[in-house]
Amino acid sequence: MSRPKPLSGFPEFLPEGRIVEQRVLASLAQTFELHGFGSIETRALEPMAQLARKGEIDKEIYVVQRLQSVRAGIADRDELGLHFDLTVPFARYVLENSGHLSFPFRRYQIQKVWRGERPQEGRYREFLQADIDVVGQDALAAHHDVEVALVILEALERLHTDFGVPPVLMRVNNRKLAEGFYRGLGIDDHLAVLQRVDKLDKIGPAAVADLLTGELGLSDQVAAKCLELATISAADESFVERVRALGVENELLDEGLAQLADLVAAAAAAVPGRLVADLKIARGLDYYTGTVYETEMTGFEHLGSICSGGRYDSLASDGRTGYPGVGLSIGVTRILVPLISKGALTASRTVPSCVLVAVDAEETRADAVAIAAKLRARGIATEVAPRADRFGKQIRYADRRGIPFVWFSSNEVKDIRSGEQVPADPDSWTPPEGDRRPGVSGG
Amino acid sequence: MSRPKPLSGFPEFLPEGRIVEQRVLASLAQTFELHGFGSIETRALEPMAQLARKGEIDKEIYVVQRLQSVRAGIADRDELGLHFDLTVPFARYVLENSGHLSFPFRRYQIQKVWRGERPQEGRYREFLQADIDVVGQDALAAHHDVEVALVILEALERLHTDFGVPPVLMRVNNRKLAEGFYRGLGIDDHLAVLQRVDKLDKIGPAAVADLLTGELGLSDQVAAKCLELATISAADESFVERVRALGVENELLDEGLAQLADLVAAAAAAVPGRLVADLKIARGLDYYTGTVYETEMTGFEHLGSICSGGRYDSLASDGRTGYPGVGLSIGVTRILVPLISKGALTASRTVPSCVLVAVDAEETRADAVAIAAKLRARGIATEVAPRADRFGKQIRYADRRGIPFVWFSSNEVKDIRSGEQVPADPDSWTPPEGDRRPGVSGG
Repeated sequence: MSRPKPLSGFPEFLPEGRIVEQRVLASLAQTFELHGFGSIETRALEPMAQLARKGEIDKEIYVVQRLQSVRAGIADRDELGLHFDLTVPFARYVLENSGHLSFPFRRYQIQKVWRGERPQEGRYREFLQADIDVVGQDALAAHHDVEVALVILEALERLHTDFGVPPVLMRVNNRKLAEGFYRGLGIDDHLAVLQRVDKLDKIGPAAVADLLTGELGLSDQVAAKCLELATISAADESFVERVRALGVENELLDEGLAQLADLVAAAAAAVPGRLVADLKIARGLDYYTGTVYETEMTGFEHLGSICSGGRYDSLASDGRTGYPGVGLSIGVTRILVPLISKGALTASRTVPSCVLVAVDAEETRADAVAIAAKLRARGIATEVAPRADRFGKQIRYADRRGIPFVWFSSNEVKDIRSGEQVPADPDSWTPPEGDRRPGVSGG
Repeated sequence: MSRPKPLSGFPEFLPEGRIVEQRVLASLAQTFELHGFGSIETRALEPMAQLARKGEIDKEIYVVQRLQSVRAGIADRDELGLHFDLTVPFARYVLENSGHLSFPFRRYQIQKVWRGERPQEGRYREFLQADIDVVGQDALAAHHDVEVALVILEALERLHTDFGVPPVLMRVNNRKLAEGFYRGLGIDDHLAVLQRVDKLDKIGPAAVADLLTGELGLSDQVAAKCLELATISAADESFVERVRALGVENELLDEGLAQLADLVAAAAAAVPGRLVADLKIARGLDYYTGTVYETEMTGFEHLGSICSGGRYDSLASDGRTGYPGVGLSIGVTRILVPLISKGALTASRTVPSCVLVAVDAEETRADAVAIAAKLRARGIATEVAPRADRFGKQIRYADRRGIPFVWFSSNEVKDIRSGEQVPADPDSWTPPEGDRRPGVSGG
């Protein structure tokens, strides 16, 4: 067999990249669990009928069929597809297990998803997402909109401080604020306005104004107000006064303003400089009904949003009970693949091993194995040299992998970076804390 | 939408089952890393041409196509399928990245695999495997056959001692031993004999003898020797003498006997009682060329082997370089689903949270959030009560989830199991070590 080529859109890491990914995932999971979010995993496959609801066909779903059915030309009775996000399967999981869950239900979910999109930087066909959501039964308090944003910002800030992942800027808006503002201006079809304002970054204010007046028949003055709202942005509660200054009165607007002000104030206190109210954020026309979130990574704005989400009044419903929720999704692959492939995020070694025990001769391999067992018993990752080569070659074996220490049967340990070799007891020797595990660092 | 039903063969855990799974996976990964095995993950999809090699069609591969292609009735140019094990993708990964890997290459891989098999206990359509392999370039020393078995036994023994997963018995054989023995008896087609002896457990010795004499034309005496070999089993090196007593001479037999004796001796010393030489083990006619392994869980023998593998002379080859390897695969789902669904393996709570901070009134929620932040800063998983209900209701909220401690704004903490309530400082209070994380226990 000749050497296989990578499949475009299906990134895989070399072992050192995978070490970075493992550490990042462990850090995310730890932050989520510190906040009481529990892990779930759902199956990779969902019935097509479930995936294709809400006109999601354009997400380029992958259909999955048994080979025998395909070859025989018969359709599988229950057609299945690979999930394209973690929200649709989570909604199904909540409905399926609602009798066994306690609400509000707080879960995180870190899994691969698949989309048959055209691959490009930041867009993959298989990629990893890390989601958190809080879901209520019938009702869910507004303070959870603040909570999920702060948990995510804390998680991303830890990636920044612990590993050197670039800092982020989260932009937030509130659908109630926009809808209330439009309604206050006498507009009925607020979604039509939102849809056009959403194009602001792409086509500019003049073109949006043309759409609002031409397509929706708004007056120049009303269209101008809509555009003025969209240009408001602030890292503190000052945006409230600026909206008020536009002179629009509406109860839903008040509610949206208050919720967004709470979020901005809480974020400014907890993680200063990482969150702004940005009143042009719309998050498409999805199912969001309140707070919406988008997040960029500083210096990597061209990747688009690396973490998005929002509040939905009905994540799922069985007809009698509704399940409102709020959640955010981190695009882990979108963050890591560019950083790792550019060498902007690296591991200090390619293997977990902290120590290589040298082997004098194959006949005495058992002695080396016994030393390794003693080190492992104290949590020190250790491997035994695969061959009783001359020591220079065994040291090079360690060096190629970045293993910092080589242990000799004379019970001496050599730090191969400094060359220092000292006597040591396998029952008590301990490596410096920073050498125990591979280090991960950015920049 | 009505309540969805589970998909047969696609098990999912409730949050408490997932806690068990997470702890088991973390324990496996930790053991593997202590032994210097590094993690890799491969994409879920492989080209069908790759998956369907070696007549693996019967594995019931799932074919994956873009919805747009299916609907348009056009075949995808690069037909893809879901991987049905982690060995085929690993072989491809090694070939694809051989220039970037250091050999012998030691990796573990914990991922889902998919097979369109008829679902039953112990057989799933989506399941999780945990594999370790060591792969060499051109050559791989025999001591790795001993090493991988000991690493796996150590990993499974930790699941037994730490969580109460039932103990295991690993049965091992060596293909060289069997092939050498048959050749020593003058048999040319050793695979034909192996294939029939492999049916011993299903059809019994008399029927196997009939096959050997009737189908292969062996003499009664030679067939009897083959059967005698197959009945030999021992937890120590005594099996060597019993094979010798059958009076067959062959170099390959000697080699196989020596390798198997090494393995049995090492396992008896490291994990007594967990490994036996069992000379009827064949592992089908796969690609194995040396040691073969099968593992049963005590009391759950009806599930079949929960961990299998072997030595292969050529995991992969690019024509010039061959990559021999040895590896084992743990069927994580096959172990966990029966144990968790029977309640034989449980978590002490359904959420990560160790502490619930009570909320006096919505106006003072910020105070509760501040206390929670102090606890989390010291690694204590904490959530804040979702509603300022009366305290009895907030305590019941914690109780339903198994959260052991409720914190009050008076800076008192209540252990809701004992009812004891004591003053505490959020900057210094620490829960008992056993309460920090959910406990997992068996039986």
